[in-house]
Amino acid sequence: MRFLSLVFPSSPKSHSHHLFSPLLNLRYSYSSSPVESTVTHVSSSSRYPLHMDAAEEALRRALADKQTAVEFQGTAVRDMKTAGAAKPEIDAAVEALNALKLEKSSIEKQLQDAFSSNGSSSAVSRDAFRQAVVNTLERRLFYIPSFKIYRGVTGLYDYGPPGCAVKSNVLAFWRQHFVLEENMLEVDCPCVTPEVVLKASGHVDKFTDLMVKDEKTGNCYRADHLLKDFCKEKLEKDLSMSAEKAAELKHVLAVLDDLSAEVLGSKIKEYGITAPDTKNPLSDPYPFNLMFQTSIGPSGLSRGYMRPETAQGIFVNFKDLYYYNGNKLPFAAAQIGQAFRNEISPRQGLLRVREFTLAEIEHFVDPDDKSHPKYSEVANLEFLMFPREEQMSGQSAKRIPLDEAVSRGIVNNETLGYFIGRVYLFLTSLGIDKERLRFRQHLANEMAHYAADCWDAEIECSYGWIECVGIADRSAYDLRAHTDKSGVPLVAHEKFSEPREVEKLVIAPVKKDLGLAFKGNQKMVVEALEAMGEKEAMEMKATLESNGEVEFHVCTLGKVVTIEKNMVMISKEKKKEHQRVFTPSVIEPSFGIGRIIYCLFEHSFYTRSSKAGDEQLNVFRFPPLVAPIKCTVFPLVQNHQYEEVAKLISKSLTAAGISHKIDMTGTSIGKRYARTDELGVPFAVTVDSTSSVTIRERDSKDQIRVSVEEVALVVKDVTDGQSTWTDVLWRYPTHSSVSADE
Amino acid sequence: MRFLSLVFPSSPKSHSHHLFSPLLNLRYSYSSSPVESTVTHVSSSSRYPLHMDAAEEALRRALADKQTAVEFQGTAVRDMKTAGAAKPEIDAAVEALNALKLEKSSIEKQLQDAFSSNGSSSAVSRDAFRQAVVNTLERRLFYIPSFKIYRGVTGLYDYGPPGCAVKSNVLAFWRQHFVLEENMLEVDCPCVTPEVVLKASGHVDKFTDLMVKDEKTGNCYRADHLLKDFCKEKLEKDLSMSAEKAAELKHVLAVLDDLSAEVLGSKIKEYGITAPDTKNPLSDPYPFNLMFQTSIGPSGLSRGYMRPETAQGIFVNFKDLYYYNGNKLPFAAAQIGQAFRNEISPRQGLLRVREFTLAEIEHFVDPDDKSHPKYSEVANLEFLMFPREEQMSGQSAKRIPLDEAVSRGIVNNETLGYFIGRVYLFLTSLGIDKERLRFRQHLANEMAHYAADCWDAEIECSYGWIECVGIADRSAYDLRAHTDKSGVPLVAHEKFSEPREVEKLVIAPVKKDLGLAFKGNQKMVVEALEAMGEKEAMEMKATLESNGEVEFHVCTLGKVVTIEKNMVMISKEKKKEHQRVFTPSVIEPSFGIGRIIYCLFEHSFYTRSSKAGDEQLNVFRFPPLVAPIKCTVFPLVQNHQYEEVAKLISKSLTAAGISHKIDMTGTSIGKRYARTDELGVPFAVTVDSTSSVTIRERDSKDQIRVSVEEVALVVKDVTDGQSTWTDVLWRYPTHSSVSADE
Repeated sequence: MRFLSLVFPSSPKSHSHHLFSPLLNLRYSYSSSPVESTVTHVSSSSRYPLHMDAAEEALRRALADKQTAVEFQGTAVRDMKTAGAAKPEIDAAVEALNALKLEKSSIEKQLQDAFSSNGSSSAVSRDAFRQAVVNTLERRLFYIPSFKIYRGVTGLYDYGPPGCAVKSNVLAFWRQHFVLEENMLEVDCPCVTPEVVLKASGHVDKFTDLMVKDEKTGNCYRADHLLKDFCKEKLEKDLSMSAEKAAELKHVLAVLDDLSAEVLGSKIKEYGITAPDTKNPLSDPYPFNLMFQTSIGPSGLSRGYMRPETAQGIFVNFKDLYYYNGNKLPFAAAQIGQAFRNEISPRQGLLRVREFTLAEIEHFVDPDDKSHPKYSEVANLEFLMFPREEQMSGQSAKRIPLDEAVSRGIVNNETLGYFIGRVYLFLTSLGIDKERLRFRQHLANEMAHYAADCWDAEIECSYGWIECVGIADRSAYDLRAHTDKSGVPLVAHEKFSEPREVEKLVIAPVKKDLGLAFKGNQKMVVEALEAMGEKEAMEMKATLESNGEVEFHVCTLGKVVTIEKNMVMISKEKKKEHQRVFTPSVIEPSFGIGRIIYCLFEHSFYTRSSKAGDEQLNVFRFPPLVAPIKCTVFPLVQNHQYEEVAKLISKSLTAAGISHKIDMTGTSIGKRYARTDELGVPFAVTVDSTSSVTIRERDSKDQIRVSVEEVALVVKDVTDGQSTWTDVLWRYPTHSSVSADE
Repeated sequence: MRFLSLVFPSSPKSHSHHLFSPLLNLRYSYSSSPVESTVTHVSSSSRYPLHMDAAEEALRRALADKQTAVEFQGTAVRDMKTAGAAKPEIDAAVEALNALKLEKSSIEKQLQDAFSSNGSSSAVSRDAFRQAVVNTLERRLFYIPSFKIYRGVTGLYDYGPPGCAVKSNVLAFWRQHFVLEENMLEVDCPCVTPEVVLKASGHVDKFTDLMVKDEKTGNCYRADHLLKDFCKEKLEKDLSMSAEKAAELKHVLAVLDDLSAEVLGSKIKEYGITAPDTKNPLSDPYPFNLMFQTSIGPSGLSRGYMRPETAQGIFVNFKDLYYYNGNKLPFAAAQIGQAFRNEISPRQGLLRVREFTLAEIEHFVDPDDKSHPKYSEVANLEFLMFPREEQMSGQSAKRIPLDEAVSRGIVNNETLGYFIGRVYLFLTSLGIDKERLRFRQHLANEMAHYAADCWDAEIECSYGWIECVGIADRSAYDLRAHTDKSGVPLVAHEKFSEPREVEKLVIAPVKKDLGLAFKGNQKMVVEALEAMGEKEAMEMKATLESNGEVEFHVCTLGKVVTIEKNMVMISKEKKKEHQRVFTPSVIEPSFGIGRIIYCLFEHSFYTRSSKAGDEQLNVFRFPPLVAPIKCTVFPLVQNHQYEEVAKLISKSLTAAGISHKIDMTGTSIGKRYARTDELGVPFAVTVDSTSSVTIRERDSKDQIRVSVEEVALVVKDVTDGQSTWTDVLWRYPTHSSVSADE
């Protein structure tokens, strides 16, 4: 195998896609694509396979049109709200929007049905695959349901020894890849957060899910979950249902995320949905805040919460951090830490939990200049992107050069593009399969109103495409919110090299004349005049100059008054300014570490036959960077001499800082290899003489002979990334006798 | 300076104790020892200086006697409680104990007064020193009061960029020094903890402080703090006080920690202590639980707490971890994570906070064999220890070889000794001054009743001697508590190589005969018979054999019955046992990371004159291991060529994984050195040519010339600990021209 050009950590046999290669003799494989058994290429999106027939083509075109209409109507609704249109007018527009959404999702469903013939069998293999991964993870203590001996708490998990090591490797690499590389300012803020901070950020008012209660037992459920479960089950089991009814239920499923409390409640009533455990009637849906609440100090008067994200700790420190950075932009701050969400009913195992580790970056930048000095270093990357337009027109995610996406304006700006590129490099270095990683742009109606652009790094796993990293341009929203609430200006200054002349509007009400005309109302009129914007003021000036008076609506008085020429002086004055004061924009890449790790577990897992062919063995193909243990050491047979050599090697590995495990049990060498493969240990050192030993690579099973003194050095070189296994294969003699033990 | 044997990181000038060397031109120095200005050696304990006069000697002897009496009486009280003595008897003994304590503390006070002549001036310099450190720490953002723009929350702090880097360096070293070195099983459990777990551990019932409330405003205070402040102020300000009154107040201060809620309350009433802010009357003291309480899930019915320590997460996982370790003892599990204590009124800045990082180790060991395989590696260490006996007899901490302490039984066992040694190595490697580090043994009455032995690593800082690491042999307490509460046996098994014969007691009540004799009471009699211990049963057997019957007290019936020979068969049977089942002991080193870091800040801080002598400059002498930034790079003058070289060096440092900072400002090189010294950056690279540059070491200010290509390599070597600065000094030419800039 030496002649093969081998890129570690893939084995030379796995050039084809690992999950689907028959050579690897896989037991578990799944794909939501209907073509899994015939191609080794995996569709980039489960929703949008590559080949279509004519009927499908027609449906797809209809869907694209409908989506454009939805987008158009959505924009119209937002514009009406901004312009302050009347409520009945808005309501009508919203109704139209919902109707369009229903039509859209109806077409979507037809489309799905059109190629879901083998959908359920694929779901079965998906579940079997997941079960195999999860069984291995639990058995080898990658994670443990927390407080298991007390029957646990839903949504809380411990990382056991190998999981904890993977996590700390991922975080160490995150620090190296982001914090060190960009000279970011890392901070570490408490989890306990006073209410005022989360009031300002909007979490106290808006961080909610809709909940219903069992009216007798008080048990709580997520309203949308119940409705979803009801619709799904009905569709699956009630085959006598009318086509209209089925369409309706499908429509409900499609628009589930957008339903208001009122609509959710009326649907639950209409369908007669009851509490799943007791069949008791349910309360109306009402918002439940997802933050864990507590009390700071002994008085019980100072409310606090466990932070739902780490970002706020950075925002409130902006002023100090800006100063620390020499009052210069751009700069980034970063934080790794626990965050908490008191989910109503956690599902999806490790993906939706009540406490999790976030790693967040807040990159502060001048809103007028979002270029990035190191952008060129990632500009040539090419990977799966799923821009808004492609989603709207029913196409699939496609491979786009990053530079093209940025220059064509698909990605809003260079800095956002830079971080998308860096996130891609980060995830793929960890071992995330680049064919099952895509960057999906938020649709206009998915984004917060203040966001300039937002992309999610989504990783495909057995639960579907999972949002693992969000990369958002949040504009000036957060800093402004804290400025308003705290009264402390969180702003940046740009000093001009020489003062600049600017025109400033000056409105000078003549109080004497106003007082004579408006008496007690004078103050309100003065304030209204002073509050005018430039356009309004200049129009008033023109009218006063031509007509001598002007009608003026004073909203605090609720009436129109007449302003005469002598009552106010409006002018533009030239001023010299020495600096520009502005609120920076923030670009926020936010990493759900637990989700990334779970997807990594799935992407790294495969099975292969034991040598005898009588057993399927589990392997995690973690790159050395991620592997919880870098190396196992075992004597070939139980023998004092070999054991002493093993201890010596263990000592040299410790000195070199290599995490390793020593296995002195008399178990067969094959069983010991299997144990270590199942933990994803990349290298196994077998002591079969006192002078030299073999090192075996996990995926290729290639072995080399290395002298006892050199072992730690070789392992360190390969795990630190100084050498690849290929380099090492060339450097040392291979150990050809595939021992009887495998 | 090349000829000096230089041990990095101390400067060659600082052979004498750093805080007191006049050569270093220190502005801030303090010591609680009265002899600070004349000796360079620092007393190992502020309480027990080395030289005494005759009066002091007499007092000290009296104190020693009294302490022995206190200890004796304390043991007596405990024994009486264990034996279930009558209440009046116990009360009398407790009263006697308190009287002895008062007498003891009276002598202690006299002793303190005897040499407190310059006590207050030393307190002033201590405060000034602390203020200087804290000012620097806050100004350079080592830490920031959390949520500062909202006027903060007492007891919550953020680590700013350099503080966060120090923290992550300390934790990375902790992982290397403990987890990797011992192959510990690191786990990562949630902070949110259900009530049942903390009920079992005792925290729900016992983790409290006594609190009083302002009866009008509801403001809360720690009862002992108020009493302490009152006594201290009174003693300082009321000079007309009678000797008796003064003695009484001093006694109160001495026994403050041991006062019950009732006594505290009556003292507060007696002294007329009111709320400090309002002078309103205060409530009686009552216990306030220090855990942050919350609710898990939406129902509000499932109470949870933010964990007050990380250890419980390990204990509840014992069974899985033992299995993971191949069902073998000893092994250790470890955890790093946040812990929370809702302090009533946090004081002492960074030392007593409401949220902090703990690093805890639980080493599980066979109670019958507490030897440690690597003990010999630390046995020869010698450092300041403060055994119980020395504390009782009024001596000071003294330098004891660890092996002596273990072999003489001062330290309870080898494993405990091993960890004490490892903790010593850990702390001193970080830069903790070994002259201000001592291991203090808990007095018998300080320890929990179940603890076998307990030592605190105490570090002296401006707040006094601070407990930073606790190293306790907690015996089987925690595992037993969770076994009892959960019903899941948390035990270990020792398989015998061959079955062992053991004698087992067999009690077989003859139900027919008992039924005839006792009718409805039969069940109670049977149970009482079966519950007999070995001794009681064998006595009964003997009596039955000699007398044919025996009087037997059945406590559930509340009366004595007569048991006849035919009613019960008592025998001893030989059985073969294949294994021993037992609850392991746990030895727990628990690290308060924030406290260690704060003490490290104080121990690392010094000031020195600027070259012109017109300014005092701050320096942190962090070892490279700990330093937040390893290296600064600056061009000597602002010049395109030099800036390009600086960028090149920065790139090579990033590639080598060295955290660094680039300073392109035109500020004088002296100012830039001062800035970087104040952050504790050990090396500064000055670009003054395009081929070679100077590297300057922070404390010695020695400079060497190194080629541009080699810079990253040299810095990496020294920061990784591969070379020392001395090595490097020999290897490269020194740069002798001390530039005009320093």
